[in-house]
Amino acid sequence: MLSVHVDLQERSYDILIEAGMLPRLAEILKRRGLPERLLLVSNPRVFELYGSIVMEGLSDGFSVEEILIADGEQHKNLDTASTIYTALIERQADRSCGLIALGGGVTGDIAGFAAATFLRGIPYIQIPTTLLAQVDSSVGGKTGVNHPLGKNLIGAFHQPHLVCIDPQTLSSLPEREYRSGLYEVIKYGLIRDRRFFEFLESSLDALLKRDPKVLQTVIRRCCEIKAEITSQDEREGGLRRILNLGHTFGHALEAATGYKHLTHGEAVGYGMKAAAALSARLGRLSQEHCHRAALLIDGLGERPSAPVPFADLYQSMQQDKKRSRGALRFVILEAIGEAAVVEAPALEDVEKAWVEAVSGD
Amino acid sequence: MLSVHVDLQERSYDILIEAGMLPRLAEILKRRGLPERLLLVSNPRVFELYGSIVMEGLSDGFSVEEILIADGEQHKNLDTASTIYTALIERQADRSCGLIALGGGVTGDIAGFAAATFLRGIPYIQIPTTLLAQVDSSVGGKTGVNHPLGKNLIGAFHQPHLVCIDPQTLSSLPEREYRSGLYEVIKYGLIRDRRFFEFLESSLDALLKRDPKVLQTVIRRCCEIKAEITSQDEREGGLRRILNLGHTFGHALEAATGYKHLTHGEAVGYGMKAAAALSARLGRLSQEHCHRAALLIDGLGERPSAPVPFADLYQSMQQDKKRSRGALRFVILEAIGEAAVVEAPALEDVEKAWVEAVSGD
Repeated sequence: MLSVHVDLQERSYDILIEAGMLPRLAEILKRRGLPERLLLVSNPRVFELYGSIVMEGLSDGFSVEEILIADGEQHKNLDTASTIYTALIERQADRSCGLIALGGGVTGDIAGFAAATFLRGIPYIQIPTTLLAQVDSSVGGKTGVNHPLGKNLIGAFHQPHLVCIDPQTLSSLPEREYRSGLYEVIKYGLIRDRRFFEFLESSLDALLKRDPKVLQTVIRRCCEIKAEITSQDEREGGLRRILNLGHTFGHALEAATGYKHLTHGEAVGYGMKAAAALSARLGRLSQEHCHRAALLIDGLGERPSAPVPFADLYQSMQQDKKRSRGALRFVILEAIGEAAVVEAPALEDVEKAWVEAVSGD
Repeated sequence: MLSVHVDLQERSYDILIEAGMLPRLAEILKRRGLPERLLLVSNPRVFELYGSIVMEGLSDGFSVEEILIADGEQHKNLDTASTIYTALIERQADRSCGLIALGGGVTGDIAGFAAATFLRGIPYIQIPTTLLAQVDSSVGGKTGVNHPLGKNLIGAFHQPHLVCIDPQTLSSLPEREYRSGLYEVIKYGLIRDRRFFEFLESSLDALLKRDPKVLQTVIRRCCEIKAEITSQDEREGGLRRILNLGHTFGHALEAATGYKHLTHGEAVGYGMKAAAALSARLGRLSQEHCHRAALLIDGLGERPSAPVPFADLYQSMQQDKKRSRGALRFVILEAIGEAAVVEAPALEDVEKAWVEAVSGD
């Protein structure tokens, strides 16, 4: 079994990666002294697919009860968190219990937030079942819900006690959702690891076909990079910001299109192209590297078009919570594998980079 | 100015105590590098009394906007937290802002929870204006709200950046609320400091008359004890539990009387008498010390009667979140100034201790 360690002193934990691990969960959790009473939070769709495997996989030594919540970003709110609290209280859960988050990013974020805030914090385990959750949201301890006025505005840092990734769960993932996760995979190469980027360039076909071996390598490397970055900067005071490559553009694009038109990954795909274009425009990235970045991003296939006027995009950026003291912040590239952060670049450059990224489509 | 340091590595902070400090807040906060943009959370009653002093006291160098929330335990819930989130978002607050909690325990707990969970955590300052908040709830980083099914079930540990205690604010406190805070003051002597307990015995009259000098000494010593205990056990894994002396009985009594009949302090008053009686019954505390404890507690004056049958009380205890794996836990005394924790004592002893504590009234 592959294991990636996230080093955060007393909040350290492991990410375990192995195809077909779910039936062996009891053995794995026992060895790590996890609570014997577990409440499993999932949504009906994922629970139907993997609920019984997980419950049976834990039956030897653990008591597990399920708490099902509605699926979808529109349900990622305090009301859904409240239904989890209510279920926990009704079942007399106490501080000696643990939560399991079984599902994609939405389930992981809400269940993590419930774990962070129920009785001021109980342990939780992430079992991510989407590519996006496996390479990104399940690692790093960011939990939270949306507010009617904006995404992810309410939340807490609460590190999981363990992350169990079974790449076999990706076989049931719809094609568009799978590809959406691949944008974040490319992101790790762009910000931190040129060799990994080159591996992705050369393995793109196998990756798109969900080749198990390539997938395992890819998930592990993404988790290693995220673990390394979040270990150095748990609460996003500095380095961790580079994980937001493409996200200033991407979040604004999602907001400007009402979160309906594009998946998060697709929006980040556009955003990373724009960030690369901005980097080149600012003289920080060579045209060659900018081109290679765009080529791999576009290699994931066609995205829905994003005909958003820059003025609309800019308005959304202004509302982005990641602005600091009013200055817009962008992650840029200095080479493939090397990222930096710039504050308040000239608006003209931002606009031209955006137009360039979209017109290439 | 008196200063008590709470040592929690990178989450360390100071508690400042001085009568008449509110008009000088700007100077105090500046020296500590606190955010220049502050959102002040308070309730209309407290804001009318102290809002303008605080706002003017900060006018030199800080921008402060108020967010008023409804007062009272019944409003300590996620809905009120949500109104704070909404106000923060509407005013475009970001991670560079700080919150001020100006008021009693309810305001401090909700504002602290909002600070813990807005944008995954922003700094906050406690300015407690009740005795209970000054000696207890403003120190230690426990934040939270109630759930319809139970008190304080939703929350987070989030340490303040500073606690500013101006004992002059106690002059406006209604008599019953003031005395309710004194029960928690006695608690500190009972659990940790026999000399402080003796000081309280000898200064009771002055304390009841709110003598400024005695009050300052008392607040400081309570904060020192709470700081010492929470520094050693931030997340209530062990030692911190002794702060719950009288609270297993007290919480159950509050719940069994619908949170209407008694203040929290009064319920804890009954609870501490019962805990002392239980300690004596278990052979852990001498009759003499038990008697002295009861005498000082009763010295605070008459409490509303608490004619709750033990069966009702016991049912409420069962639901108390502080039980661990089903076992009821009580803080007991081994002497005045020395506490310990016992799990699942014989029910008969618990019942007899309760009857003894109440019948003495």
